[in-house]
Amino acid sequence: MTPRTWTDRQCPVARTLDLVGDRWVLLIIRDAFDGLTRFSEFQRSLGIAKNILADRLRLLVENGILRRVDTGADSRAHYRLTPRGEDLFTVIVGLRQWGERNAFEADEEHSVLILEQTGEPLPNIDPVRADGGRIVARDTHVQKV
Amino acid sequence: MTPRTWTDRQCPVARTLDLVGDRWVLLIIRDAFDGLTRFSEFQRSLGIAKNILADRLRLLVENGILRRVDTGADSRAHYRLTPRGEDLFTVIVGLRQWGERNAFEADEEHSVLILEQTGEPLPNIDPVRADGGRIVARDTHVQKV
Repeated sequence: MTPRTWTDRQCPVARTLDLVGDRWVLLIIRDAFDGLTRFSEFQRSLGIAKNILADRLRLLVENGILRRVDTGADSRAHYRLTPRGEDLFTVIVGLRQWGERNAFEADEEHSVLILEQTGEPLPNIDPVRADGGRIVARDTHVQKV
Repeated sequence: MTPRTWTDRQCPVARTLDLVGDRWVLLIIRDAFDGLTRFSEFQRSLGIAKNILADRLRLLVENGILRRVDTGADSRAHYRLTPRGEDLFTVIVGLRQWGERNAFEADEEHSVLILEQTGEPLPNIDPVRADGGRIVARDTHVQKV
């Protein structure tokens, strides 16, 4: 992690957003989880301008989320998730599950994230209490440093 | 939900990011979970330009994440999370937990999200298999429509 100016030094939410809080950045990470590695693949998937894609890939490499791999084979770079990038899986799943619940009408179809082991959709990740009830914001408070 | 042009119609991750995929938007939602409701409170917390804050609050209301409540008492509007906004709690927790693991050095302090019921930090929300192992991206695949 490069030393830098954080929006809010002591808040982990804010630090994460300083590193990946951008729509294109998070869509590139989504695509990387789906196995895309090349500039041209990300560009085709996202339909964004090359300069914007190049900028976001550079940021992702700088922030240690992707690593750039230059292969001798075809001289084109591949971008792969680092362990820190792989660790964003839960964030992407959280965005997906919220969208499934809140951004589709009942009759609209959407892609589904399947757990190989069961062949079923990934279980819900909302935090739950010991009694199984869903934990909501008012069950919690932020303890500042 | 207003009909609109989606970046990627069938992907719930992309639809969510079309609605809330912005650093300031997600920081406003974080602050709303912490109990902030007024324009001046968000501005003080985030230190952003008034026109940017006004724009993001407008988007959040349009997209049904916040609702604007005009109180007779002091003529200043309050902004409160709608049920759809409250449902973003898991996303904010996911961003927080990733940041705690990946955006702080070992000797740096950060705020902690405490579960009232236990007085302890909120448990980890990473998805787990039946055997307790953490589910990672390669245990899954996206089934397209």
